[in-house]
Amino acid sequence: MTKPNFKQSLLAAALVSALTFTTTSTHAADALPSWNDGKAKQSIVDFVAKVTMEGSPDFVPPAERIATFDNDGTLWCEQPMYFQFLFAFDRVKVLAPQHPEWKDKEPFASLLKGDLKGTLAGGEHAMLELVMATHAGMTTEEFEKIVTDWIATARHPTTKRPYTEMVYQPMLELLAYLRANNFKTFIVSGGGIEFMRVFAEKTYGIPPEQVIGSSGKLKFELRDGKPVLVKLPAIDFINDKEGKPAGIQEHIGRRPIAAFGNSDGDLQMLQWTAAGPGARFCLYVHHTDAEREWAYDRKSQIGQLDKGLDEAQAKGWTVVSMKDDWKTVFPPKQ
Amino acid sequence: MTKPNFKQSLLAAALVSALTFTTTSTHAADALPSWNDGKAKQSIVDFVAKVTMEGSPDFVPPAERIATFDNDGTLWCEQPMYFQFLFAFDRVKVLAPQHPEWKDKEPFASLLKGDLKGTLAGGEHAMLELVMATHAGMTTEEFEKIVTDWIATARHPTTKRPYTEMVYQPMLELLAYLRANNFKTFIVSGGGIEFMRVFAEKTYGIPPEQVIGSSGKLKFELRDGKPVLVKLPAIDFINDKEGKPAGIQEHIGRRPIAAFGNSDGDLQMLQWTAAGPGARFCLYVHHTDAEREWAYDRKSQIGQLDKGLDEAQAKGWTVVSMKDDWKTVFPPKQ
Repeated sequence: MTKPNFKQSLLAAALVSALTFTTTSTHAADALPSWNDGKAKQSIVDFVAKVTMEGSPDFVPPAERIATFDNDGTLWCEQPMYFQFLFAFDRVKVLAPQHPEWKDKEPFASLLKGDLKGTLAGGEHAMLELVMATHAGMTTEEFEKIVTDWIATARHPTTKRPYTEMVYQPMLELLAYLRANNFKTFIVSGGGIEFMRVFAEKTYGIPPEQVIGSSGKLKFELRDGKPVLVKLPAIDFINDKEGKPAGIQEHIGRRPIAAFGNSDGDLQMLQWTAAGPGARFCLYVHHTDAEREWAYDRKSQIGQLDKGLDEAQAKGWTVVSMKDDWKTVFPPKQ
Repeated sequence: MTKPNFKQSLLAAALVSALTFTTTSTHAADALPSWNDGKAKQSIVDFVAKVTMEGSPDFVPPAERIATFDNDGTLWCEQPMYFQFLFAFDRVKVLAPQHPEWKDKEPFASLLKGDLKGTLAGGEHAMLELVMATHAGMTTEEFEKIVTDWIATARHPTTKRPYTEMVYQPMLELLAYLRANNFKTFIVSGGGIEFMRVFAEKTYGIPPEQVIGSSGKLKFELRDGKPVLVKLPAIDFINDKEGKPAGIQEHIGRRPIAAFGNSDGDLQMLQWTAAGPGARFCLYVHHTDAEREWAYDRKSQIGQLDKGLDEAQAKGWTVVSMKDDWKTVFPPKQ
């Protein structure tokens, strides 16, 4: 083959430009290097292409490109337990010297003896007690400092990595890819709103005002003339299941066009998203990789995905198999 | 004077560029044409210049340039009564045929007879009843449609202008000026969050996710398989006074660096803003113009500014006299 002349080169360049211009998916593929080629990746790329292409019948103006992400099990790992509970456990140990009464009071007593089964025996009520004892009775600034210090030093019980490295590399790429296409990315999680905000911006590029979570009541006070917000031991809102669409409405006031979850706790968010007019995208991360992460779904205590899996299959939502669709799971060690 | 040569022109151009580059305030003045020159305008321009100038000791990164605005009396008029109450009054009249019992029940009976004094006689409790009867028992989408229709057709009782023209032109310019300087502008109002979101984007350029207000509880339901959010007749949060810093924390999770209000209901928001580290800006709009708008402050039933005025003077916050500082009050008729 002879070397192409100038005119041919120009033509080729124009052709490449035209292709790049009309199919965003060409570029998109490179934005998701940790995703294996396949139906899941293609469904993402196709959706983004059609809602961002001006003139397309599915075009969505940038202001309406709202994408919501669950956190535990969707953006970061949730095994062997929600990380926020592990934070609460660590805090109970730190605070124990100031609470001699905990030695005889469940679930604190079991936890301090290192008896995890006993700690969890009290179920939801026990967990709530642990959360209240470790998340309230201080100002929002004091709490932020405690979480900041914890997240900088604590390590995951089995992998020994910092919790902020137990995030899913393919999802980090997906967040960045959506933002590059003028989506506004939100976290919509059952986790504590003040807890997640400490690391969400640095870890996910999601600023505090785009983090929606469960919350406790706050009380404004002047302490020596200085205003503070005190975290009260009272639940304000549980941002899970039916709570997720309500939390989205309260915080965003606009229905997402794309939603990402991994459990039945995300089902109502996906339903709410899917039911809007125009192009919609719903995705479940399916934990299928016992080797690189964990494998669990219908029968799991944490992150159960049962009804959601059926509905995803019935409605043609994207189901990502971590084992098959992800080239890598976690980012490289820092 | 002779015509300058090329070299001189170049020098002059470079000088102008340098000046423009180092003093944002030069440009800023033009961005606020409805503001008279004076202390108030200058304080705004100086603040924006110092927090946006890289290398300045007061520089604030764009992500942290949060500015919060009260709505009633700060961005739009609140006389002779909060517009949202006038909306509720109009709705009671529309809904009356479906509620024959209202003829004998206060405050509905007085309102339907056109007796405003009787309507208000029941105080806060009566107003709450009117709000619940007109803002709940429907889906969020139905409510949005009702407010959209009302705001498009209703007229202010004395000026006969659409409510969305009863906004303050100088404040519209201020919002745009801050955004041009990479501030993120939020509404933080005692008004209803779902009510304000209907017009905030079009009127103020503030998207729904940046509107914070009082809210009722929402309930997620599937109706014939279609998910809806039903507005329940139960208060979720009152975003006023001590509620404002709590609302800001819940929605934004970051302390504003600038806050704008007009009443004692905004005082805690201004205190919370002022108490943060680094450069801070607090501003009160003072209703001093009986001719072009209304004049009221310390003794007013609506928009009382008493403690706030004292604190503004003590702390050196900016107090804008509508009469003296504003060239025009309302935008031209459309």
